[in-house]
Amino acid sequence: MKWNRKDLLHIESLTRDEIELIIQTAKPMKEILFRPIKKLPTFRGKSVINLFYESSTRTKSSFETAAKVLGADTTSLAVAQSSVNKGETLYDTARTLQAMNPDIVVVRHASSGAAQFLSQTLKAGVINAGDGQHEHPTQALLDLFTMREHITDLSGKKVLIVGDVLHSRVARSNVYSLTKMGAEVVLVGPPTLLPPEMKILGVKMSYQLDTELPGADVVMALRLQLERQQAGLLPSLREYSLLYGLNRERIEQTGKDTLVMHPGPMNRGVEITSEVANSPNAVIEEQVTNGVAIRMAIMYLLMGGTSNVVA
Amino acid sequence: MKWNRKDLLHIESLTRDEIELIIQTAKPMKEILFRPIKKLPTFRGKSVINLFYESSTRTKSSFETAAKVLGADTTSLAVAQSSVNKGETLYDTARTLQAMNPDIVVVRHASSGAAQFLSQTLKAGVINAGDGQHEHPTQALLDLFTMREHITDLSGKKVLIVGDVLHSRVARSNVYSLTKMGAEVVLVGPPTLLPPEMKILGVKMSYQLDTELPGADVVMALRLQLERQQAGLLPSLREYSLLYGLNRERIEQTGKDTLVMHPGPMNRGVEITSEVANSPNAVIEEQVTNGVAIRMAIMYLLMGGTSNVVA
Amino acid sequence: MKWNRKDLLHIESLTRDEIELIIQTAKPMKEILFRPIKKLPTFRGKSVINLFYESSTRTKSSFETAAKVLGADTTSLAVAQSSVNKGETLYDTARTLQAMNPDIVVVRHASSGAAQFLSQTLKAGVINAGDGQHEHPTQALLDLFTMREHITDLSGKKVLIVGDVLHSRVARSNVYSLTKMGAEVVLVGPPTLLPPEMKILGVKMSYQLDTELPGADVVMALRLQLERQQAGLLPSLREYSLLYGLNRERIEQTGKDTLVMHPGPMNRGVEITSEVANSPNAVIEEQVTNGVAIRMAIMYLLMGGTSNVVA
Repeated sequence: MKWNRKDLLHIESLTRDEIELIIQTAKPMKEILFRPIKKLPTFRGKSVINLFYESSTRTKSSFETAAKVLGADTTSLAVAQSSVNKGETLYDTARTLQAMNPDIVVVRHASSGAAQFLSQTLKAGVINAGDGQHEHPTQALLDLFTMREHITDLSGKKVLIVGDVLHSRVARSNVYSLTKMGAEVVLVGPPTLLPPEMKILGVKMSYQLDTELPGADVVMALRLQLERQQAGLLPSLREYSLLYGLNRERIEQTGKDTLVMHPGPMNRGVEITSEVANSPNAVIEEQVTNGVAIRMAIMYLLMGGTSNVVA
Repeated sequence: MKWNRKDLLHIESLTRDEIELIIQTAKPMKEILFRPIKKLPTFRGKSVINLFYESSTRTKSSFETAAKVLGADTTSLAVAQSSVNKGETLYDTARTLQAMNPDIVVVRHASSGAAQFLSQTLKAGVINAGDGQHEHPTQALLDLFTMREHITDLSGKKVLIVGDVLHSRVARSNVYSLTKMGAEVVLVGPPTLLPPEMKILGVKMSYQLDTELPGADVVMALRLQLERQQAGLLPSLREYSLLYGLNRERIEQTGKDTLVMHPGPMNRGVEITSEVANSPNAVIEEQVTNGVAIRMAIMYLLMGGTSNVVA
Repeated sequence: MKWNRKDLLHIESLTRDEIELIIQTAKPMKEILFRPIKKLPTFRGKSVINLFYESSTRTKSSFETAAKVLGADTTSLAVAQSSVNKGETLYDTARTLQAMNPDIVVVRHASSGAAQFLSQTLKAGVINAGDGQHEHPTQALLDLFTMREHITDLSGKKVLIVGDVLHSRVARSNVYSLTKMGAEVVLVGPPTLLPPEMKILGVKMSYQLDTELPGADVVMALRLQLERQQAGLLPSLREYSLLYGLNRERIEQTGKDTLVMHPGPMNRGVEITSEVANSPNAVIEEQVTNGVAIRMAIMYLLMGGTSNVVA
């Protein structure tokens, strides 16, 4: 199978085969990360622009590392302090970017649809690194890649996504990728944080973590945005932790050697205890490594890479 | 002709031949930007330091891209948050830079003469990326390069520069470059924003945009600094737009297939309408591309590049 | 002799032979900085992550330059604006870093022991770029390297360190390195700024600069943190300058062709006069150059470089 999209915008619009191709491409990419020389000559002279309207150390440095390992040049536009303050529209930023003739633009923006908009304006391949509360497709792909390293076939497997689903683009993208792979997804959280429209996607919603745990193959904790809690929009941290925090007893209730995942950064003691985060069930570090590999794979495919990855 | 200056400080001090050499060198540089592999081995192991005392996404990333395409290593010193806060003088910063033995230093500073000062202290080539309200030579050169792609000979051609000329280093540098090329420059704006001393340079000044439009070969809108408007130093945006905003009717008044230029970022609806900015007359995107090419050309010449550009 | 430590954490734990090896390695590194092509192929495909929890233009760009000259890829995490705000622990940051498989992590942190902690968690080599008020080992090594270029054997030589010793990790690291090399170190400053526990290290402490100057081979001024003065913790600038500022008369009192050093950035007119800072005795610029060379040497040794440095 060959990749034939210019951009990587949303999981919702990807076919199962396309998702599979990205994951298959990520495997050799991951191996390159552990070679003594982590550098391919593949994309020498190609340029990747990181356009981050929201700050993010993790995602940004993951994309930067991916681009550098592929041999590309990267430039970061920290937009918050710059032209955005001067009131430039996203359209004009796009025209400016286009004029610099980049090969790939990675964009994170507070508005849903920002990546889509750029993709229509730019000749460059556009990768959505998070658009508002809409999607965060590379996170969902790295999560899927991580699950697949432990569970060969996700079909019929039970995956719990626990926490502030309402505000989470990570949850949204994961619902799309996991249902496409045939997994049974259960969204768990307090009533105020579970968006009713998700039911349309055929996923189960539950306010009771404890009743959902038995049989879960994967338990993914979402990050609790403490800013929201402080604004009085969430239950108290103590209450949240009591009802939805992942601890050893809860993980044991799954009755399985379940995978524990978290997109990071963690609030230890809130959505997950340190004991669980440090346990062998947790694959949180693998998620980070796989993030670089997935982003390499996507860049590789967008730039027209063939299946013969190894340099 | 050979380049024999260490630095690129001000248009005022360049000869017409030197300006011509930079533009001729920018042509092959621009072609390189559209090759599949945008990378020359020319300046491998050379180092370019970007020293920006004022923030700027556009100019800084343009210089960075230029340096990377030439194969140089770049380091950015975001001075605002750092030693400047600790009260270090420009002189000591210069000594520190010198001790790191860079090949080129690109400097933007709020004080007129900062680049000149650095050029005297540093062995490295210094490029002025904007010094106070004094000059912004690379902008004027990219503007000239862009005009020359459409108008072979600027001699006798009429160029309107419209807006806040008083605070604009872009206007000042353009006046120098355009008059050297024999163009007829008219500065247009409200009385409070037209500096009387510009008359010495032999340019015409006018408060009436509409009377100056007929016959204009180029109309360049300057960016209105909204901060200044908010401080009550400028007319209201509505009034400004009414008197000096570029719209379709005005562009048609030129009676020519006039070029519309803007250094960016634009305030659409203020100094220029979206209709004009998106029209075929506008070369605003070309200006951005040419900015990278001009900066490559200048770095190339400062580092002693020969006329045989192609790698 | 061969280097066999994974990390460079503190001068306190280094042997005299190890210090000597770093300085011997820095010599050829310095030569590379003055070659036309300042780039080694040595560490192509190696990655260096700069993790700066405190801002620093000088130290950070020195490490970045060192890494780039060695041919490595560098990524900077400006942590202040990012995950740290989101409350991530240093431990989780370490796990995230580990998952990205860097070869070297350079860390500056406000807490003493942060570098040590990272070194235990990471497989990568860790370089301490300053931890709280504890140590700043690369500064001490570059200071030592600079002294050694002028004074072949430091044994028995008199070195004055003048200023706010209490809050200075530079002073602390220098005490360790200089006493290991057999120098006679005298810490000079106002009583409130001389930490009594330093006496244990066998160094002399004095409140009287003028009585200590005769015979001094090296006089190193520390930077006065003006923030502390403003908080009322220090004597007035005028008083400080009167008692401890380095001026020409004081330098002449040494009766020697003494070396004048300062880690930068300087407060001219406070801890040092411009006359002294610009005099031939001052080696402040050399310190900056040697900083890059020392950091290259350390990275080179940590990555397992052999004694055959030249590319």
